[in-house]
Amino acid sequence: MSDVLDLTRDLVARASVTPDDAGCQALIAQRLQRSGFRCEQLRFGVVDNLWAVHGSDGPTLVLLGHTDVVPPGPREAWASDPFVPEIRDGVLYGRGAADMKGSVAAFVVALERFVATHPDHPGRVALLLTSDEEGDAIDGVRKVAETFRARGERIDWCITGEPSSTTRLGDLLRVGRRGTLSATLTVRGIQGHVAYPEKARNPIHQAMPALAELAARRWDDGYETFPPTSLQVSNVHAGTGANNVIPGEMQVLFNLRYNPSWRAEQLEQQCEDVLRAHGLEYEVRWQRGGEPFYTPEGPLRAAAREVLTRFCGSAPEESTGGGTSDARFIAPLGAQCIEIGPVNASIHKVDEHVAVADLEALPELYLALIEKMLA
Amino acid sequence: MSDVLDLTRDLVARASVTPDDAGCQALIAQRLQRSGFRCEQLRFGVVDNLWAVHGSDGPTLVLLGHTDVVPPGPREAWASDPFVPEIRDGVLYGRGAADMKGSVAAFVVALERFVATHPDHPGRVALLLTSDEEGDAIDGVRKVAETFRARGERIDWCITGEPSSTTRLGDLLRVGRRGTLSATLTVRGIQGHVAYPEKARNPIHQAMPALAELAARRWDDGYETFPPTSLQVSNVHAGTGANNVIPGEMQVLFNLRYNPSWRAEQLEQQCEDVLRAHGLEYEVRWQRGGEPFYTPEGPLRAAAREVLTRFCGSAPEESTGGGTSDARFIAPLGAQCIEIGPVNASIHKVDEHVAVADLEALPELYLALIEKMLA
Repeated sequence: MSDVLDLTRDLVARASVTPDDAGCQALIAQRLQRSGFRCEQLRFGVVDNLWAVHGSDGPTLVLLGHTDVVPPGPREAWASDPFVPEIRDGVLYGRGAADMKGSVAAFVVALERFVATHPDHPGRVALLLTSDEEGDAIDGVRKVAETFRARGERIDWCITGEPSSTTRLGDLLRVGRRGTLSATLTVRGIQGHVAYPEKARNPIHQAMPALAELAARRWDDGYETFPPTSLQVSNVHAGTGANNVIPGEMQVLFNLRYNPSWRAEQLEQQCEDVLRAHGLEYEVRWQRGGEPFYTPEGPLRAAAREVLTRFCGSAPEESTGGGTSDARFIAPLGAQCIEIGPVNASIHKVDEHVAVADLEALPELYLALIEKMLA
Repeated sequence: MSDVLDLTRDLVARASVTPDDAGCQALIAQRLQRSGFRCEQLRFGVVDNLWAVHGSDGPTLVLLGHTDVVPPGPREAWASDPFVPEIRDGVLYGRGAADMKGSVAAFVVALERFVATHPDHPGRVALLLTSDEEGDAIDGVRKVAETFRARGERIDWCITGEPSSTTRLGDLLRVGRRGTLSATLTVRGIQGHVAYPEKARNPIHQAMPALAELAARRWDDGYETFPPTSLQVSNVHAGTGANNVIPGEMQVLFNLRYNPSWRAEQLEQQCEDVLRAHGLEYEVRWQRGGEPFYTPEGPLRAAAREVLTRFCGSAPEESTGGGTSDARFIAPLGAQCIEIGPVNASIHKVDEHVAVADLEALPELYLALIEKMLA
């Protein structure tokens, strides 16, 4: 059994359903301390965060990951226990195998080898882990980044280990993410009886054309390598169940995923312009979940492309698609951020898995990248 | 104290919140039996219905009412206990005073006087009461009408005592009602993540333009004295609360109030044409709550106009507006139906009331109308 496989199995066996770390970070801190890393526990509320650093002056390269996993759902839906790692036909099964305990284990093994080979490397190499990436993401890297900002902690480069590959390991290099902006909207009408519509004002009737306009709108055509900005209405609720009552208000949630051609406040403004143009009486609460970030051509992106090309035999797709990641909190500190990790086809699903061969290749891949930047 | 006032107070004191009759019908049956009425209890499920008849061959005139009331809501919102009738400044307060225990008491007093004066009147005069008008309206007059249809019970004329007057007693003669048609609609999409809208199909986005078109549609301009047909979306529900998930389906309730220029199946067809034209994948369950009815010029409507004109000093407005009533179940038996009752400004509200003067005039009014038809 290889080192990375053993550690991944140890981590999967810990049922660290978000935001519970279940001892993963203590296990990792113990190992890295033996390699000379300075480990700091940053616990906020019920969330564990680990900051492990090696080296001193010069640029800082951070490996970023999370130890929490999404709930497995019913046990009987899985072929084997989600928290008992099992290898079948060269594939390791278990919740978190791909998202992202395999990457975290590979980070640890790569860091150990790096400092063993380069005990006096220039700059600093660090690992940042949280147990709140899959949950509220409030007391995790968001809070750590605030702490770092307050104490002037410098981060130059950040490699997130999120499962970003699509069909084989290393076929995709994430170089940015869209921003996320959420709206909680209440549309007010006047309650009444359906037989007397002239005495009421139906908030559903008022809201539908406005929401239809927002949903149909083409915000942009995309931006550099970014997909277009999109708006999705995720929740609508109005009415008491009775079919003879016009409700007094309607509750709506909608979300925008936007590229760096927009700032959140511009989107808020334009959405509200539409709501007002339709004469809605409304209240809206905006929640800015993370600004978009983008890492243009530069040393980190070039190094990552070179390493992935060597590992895969062909250049990776360089993409800004998909959801958000904790890199959104590190990028505003001034860091260049990229994301490289295993194939994501099974994440958040039953029978989550990672190929053992991919897992065993991952430490080499991360090590090559660390060496390019800091050796 | 007058007879009608006493009886109204006795009925209001019985807390007959729908579908509970709370002994109202037994009290009434006792009185009418003393006047020679044949009383039949038609109990379906938890609902009490009373059918009291006097006379034999010839045309049948039915007085139609209900003994149940809507819930009073919090006691402290009322100036006096809703089930302790109280007269203040010539006004009787209590739940059901206007809707419609006052009318029911007036029916009873009018019937007693009529058969006392005209013991050998031609035809039949009858009282039909239910305790399920304010609730589901399933085991009330709907079920009674089915029974009547099965046994060939003939009804020629029907006077409903629902509170129909707008500002003073007798200012409005209801000569029809719109029909009601309800839809329970499920729009199916494909669940997904808001960051990957191209992999999902948002049922909210699909439904909104279709529902907006249905809501904005002008179905007709009204019909004879009928208000226009109207559609109201009363309930919309989609989403689990999470703002990053595109829901898999959307639940919608909508209701149409329609005039006799439409049949229910035509409306169903036209609504579904719109849903299909928008490419919705949907299921819809239609509930026909009552076809519209209309009583054109004829002996009953003419008699009612003459009596109301004499009582009020001016001709009543003849209207088909408002919600539904139990007359929708009697009209399909072939009966001419009209509705005359007290002022409806306070019904279904706190401090429901009826003017004592109006209450005392009501038996005379109904008696005059019965005499016109059967004496």
